[in-house]
Amino acid sequence: MTPFIAEILGTAILILLGGGVVANVNLNKTIGQGSDWIVITTGWALAVFAGVVVAGPYSGAHLNPAVTIGLAVGGIFPWADVPTYLAGEFIGAMLGSSLVYLMYKNHFDVTEDGATKRAVFCTAPAIPDTFRNLISEILGTFVLVICVFYFAEASFEIEAGTTTKVGLGAIGAIPVAFIVWAIGLSLGGTTGYAINPARDLGPRIVHALLPIKGKTDSGWGYAWIPVVGPLIGGLVAAVLFLILGK
Amino acid sequence: MTPFIAEILGTAILILLGGGVVANVNLNKTIGQGSDWIVITTGWALAVFAGVVVAGPYSGAHLNPAVTIGLAVGGIFPWADVPTYLAGEFIGAMLGSSLVYLMYKNHFDVTEDGATKRAVFCTAPAIPDTFRNLISEILGTFVLVICVFYFAEASFEIEAGTTTKVGLGAIGAIPVAFIVWAIGLSLGGTTGYAINPARDLGPRIVHALLPIKGKTDSGWGYAWIPVVGPLIGGLVAAVLFLILGK
Amino acid sequence: MTPFIAEILGTAILILLGGGVVANVNLNKTIGQGSDWIVITTGWALAVFAGVVVAGPYSGAHLNPAVTIGLAVGGIFPWADVPTYLAGEFIGAMLGSSLVYLMYKNHFDVTEDGATKRAVFCTAPAIPDTFRNLISEILGTFVLVICVFYFAEASFEIEAGTTTKVGLGAIGAIPVAFIVWAIGLSLGGTTGYAINPARDLGPRIVHALLPIKGKTDSGWGYAWIPVVGPLIGGLVAAVLFLILGK
Amino acid sequence: MTPFIAEILGTAILILLGGGVVANVNLNKTIGQGSDWIVITTGWALAVFAGVVVAGPYSGAHLNPAVTIGLAVGGIFPWADVPTYLAGEFIGAMLGSSLVYLMYKNHFDVTEDGATKRAVFCTAPAIPDTFRNLISEILGTFVLVICVFYFAEASFEIEAGTTTKVGLGAIGAIPVAFIVWAIGLSLGGTTGYAINPARDLGPRIVHALLPIKGKTDSGWGYAWIPVVGPLIGGLVAAVLFLILGK
Repeated sequence: MTPFIAEILGTAILILLGGGVVANVNLNKTIGQGSDWIVITTGWALAVFAGVVVAGPYSGAHLNPAVTIGLAVGGIFPWADVPTYLAGEFIGAMLGSSLVYLMYKNHFDVTEDGATKRAVFCTAPAIPDTFRNLISEILGTFVLVICVFYFAEASFEIEAGTTTKVGLGAIGAIPVAFIVWAIGLSLGGTTGYAINPARDLGPRIVHALLPIKGKTDSGWGYAWIPVVGPLIGGLVAAVLFLILGK
Repeated sequence: MTPFIAEILGTAILILLGGGVVANVNLNKTIGQGSDWIVITTGWALAVFAGVVVAGPYSGAHLNPAVTIGLAVGGIFPWADVPTYLAGEFIGAMLGSSLVYLMYKNHFDVTEDGATKRAVFCTAPAIPDTFRNLISEILGTFVLVICVFYFAEASFEIEAGTTTKVGLGAIGAIPVAFIVWAIGLSLGGTTGYAINPARDLGPRIVHALLPIKGKTDSGWGYAWIPVVGPLIGGLVAAVLFLILGK
Repeated sequence: MTPFIAEILGTAILILLGGGVVANVNLNKTIGQGSDWIVITTGWALAVFAGVVVAGPYSGAHLNPAVTIGLAVGGIFPWADVPTYLAGEFIGAMLGSSLVYLMYKNHFDVTEDGATKRAVFCTAPAIPDTFRNLISEILGTFVLVICVFYFAEASFEIEAGTTTKVGLGAIGAIPVAFIVWAIGLSLGGTTGYAINPARDLGPRIVHALLPIKGKTDSGWGYAWIPVVGPLIGGLVAAVLFLILGK
Repeated sequence: MTPFIAEILGTAILILLGGGVVANVNLNKTIGQGSDWIVITTGWALAVFAGVVVAGPYSGAHLNPAVTIGLAVGGIFPWADVPTYLAGEFIGAMLGSSLVYLMYKNHFDVTEDGATKRAVFCTAPAIPDTFRNLISEILGTFVLVICVFYFAEASFEIEAGTTTKVGLGAIGAIPVAFIVWAIGLSLGGTTGYAINPARDLGPRIVHALLPIKGKTDSGWGYAWIPVVGPLIGGLVAAVLFLILGK
């Protein structure tokens, strides 16, 4: 699998599962309707887990332009690969949210509120406020990317001074899932933690294109915040990483 | 333990725990009655964990015909062993759901609604729709089987170019449990995520056979969907695996 | 730390945390009052985790007479050590539940219902029925002990044919916690999953001895079931292990 | 990264996420408003996880004066480094809670109750009682610090008698997060489990300093308990560790 394909497949799984949990909790007549914030945040965390499990060995599983650009700024990912990764992430996100609609269409049809339907695709702020909403997305993404920078790898020393790296396999995808779980639980309360431009903008475009019955506008006035905020958050993490070092 | 016995024991534990959590949440006068979707989905995820812990070292712990056939199509499981595995999976599922009834019988007796009782055994769609229900089961199983194909194994390199495989023991059962958790939270909202022909059809037969007080029909009109959907989902994952390679 | 001390300390931590979560959810005016079954079961699972983390390296962290006797019957624990372990487990359980009372006393005092107070110490069936209640405790403990028998250890092969055992440290306590989580979610609905004679009888004795304001009887008519049921469940698992082999 | 910086950064992330989850659940018009105790406790557990992931390799990630002083008393942390660590922990906690306010300010503004706002910063007892509240904080912190003392490290034996330590990387931060999760679920019901003087006093000072609209007093009468209680709890754990040995 090429990194490009891995980013598409991983992000598609991420958004299929992430959008899916929002659909399950919020749309009408679903089995999980009315579930709590724990369901939403656990669903998104495990969506990241699934995406990373599949894409990890082939692309490093960024699945997020804020991670890709942050790592490039931090000097541990080549700039030349950035466009391919971003393309894969957006294609994957659009594919994933299309699958959510394909699967949950009957439940979209029996849901009245347009904003509820749109929430399956993209985020909206609890209290609109450009400055504070940006801060929310910056802080959430900062936590994600700084953790990614400082994830220690498993290793052991077999001779004094020689460290051997250990690959933990699929288990190695747990830390990033736990970080996303943390961000959702704690920092998701204001803007719904997009923390990923592809996760928000890709499905928003899909929302605009699909003929969803009784849909509302696609929230374009807000759309730039979950793109710019995460990018700034990733940059701040990268700059801090460059200052502090490893 | 032979692989046949391992599949029986592992699937029996899977269905005892999986059916058990549905009984606990839905039947009358249980201690966990009325719990949330998080209880159902965590219960099923950990049911998979327990089944895999026991069966894993002996059979690879498929516990699911869609996995067995998917891996065979993908070329990493011998076709000759498929019938034995399928037999073990169905026997185990029927045994497990019988134990759930044995244990929760008094609670079945004090529950009025026949559909609620049947839900302890097998799935039913929130909104019946052959095409969309199939899509749901296909997508859920696709995510499960594609992740199984791409689970990386733990390993380390002790000399340049020589990779040594590390067995993580019981911890190694966590990733598949997390994937099933993800599928339940996110893709369980439409059809209740059978994603396993043995998990649905085996207990459905048990439901038909047992003299459950006030039971309703066993939902035979729907029964083929959670068999065919998962098989298609596993096939799609296998074909994608053959195309993309490892 | 001797194994005897380790069993005391580990079981005390187990019951302090396990009894604590029941107190937090059920007693009046606590911060977690009215929480869901997910809180109860996660609390008990992590109580096991904490107890095993502390006692594991010193005693193997049985923390449960059904495990101790089951492993002895299965031939992987010396009978000569059984009395010491059982003594440690009961002492620890009584110590732990005393600490719960010490800490939550004010909340006991403002709670009316005697059965609610007793539930912090020991279990009671949702629907009293000797046969079915025994079955519940047998099945729950069977799942626990059969998983303990079949937990695979982490290992790697450094030369062909030579397996080196890897100790995962505190992480290695996760599988048993997850199994207890599974049992609680799925099989806890009928009798409250004692699955451990020390966990139930020890605190029940403490309940009888402590001068708890407005307490009800200590449920002695039921008390033998969460002792005998788990012992039978452990025996069944041990016999199956002896038949099936590793 | 120096240990001082690591303690600041790690504790800031801990309190940003920990305070954040309380804000999300309790403040008005947040997306997670009204969530259950499972959200609060999972949020704090994962906040610890995130802080430990970042600070672990550089400072050992105490993030808590009760841990720092406990380990010093127990003889496994040099007294000379204690002041630097404490300073880092308090600075980090104050920074983190300031960021929570920056992010959730609009939600503070639309929340009436002053005690609800203060709870985002620091703890208050469910039933005020100096002795019992102290006991609660002592017991909670005792469990935390005794587990930290007895966490086994991952290791393997490559030649008979020679143990090689294995670093599990970010995965190695899971056990302490699970212990904090356990303490919250089980022992958080009385005083809200500060179990960390910096976590409580640092943000309390920030609460006193910030011009929060409609804020109540900063609860200074109670403030010493979540400082002294955790310190005693850590000491008790250290003394027990010195008596029992490793």
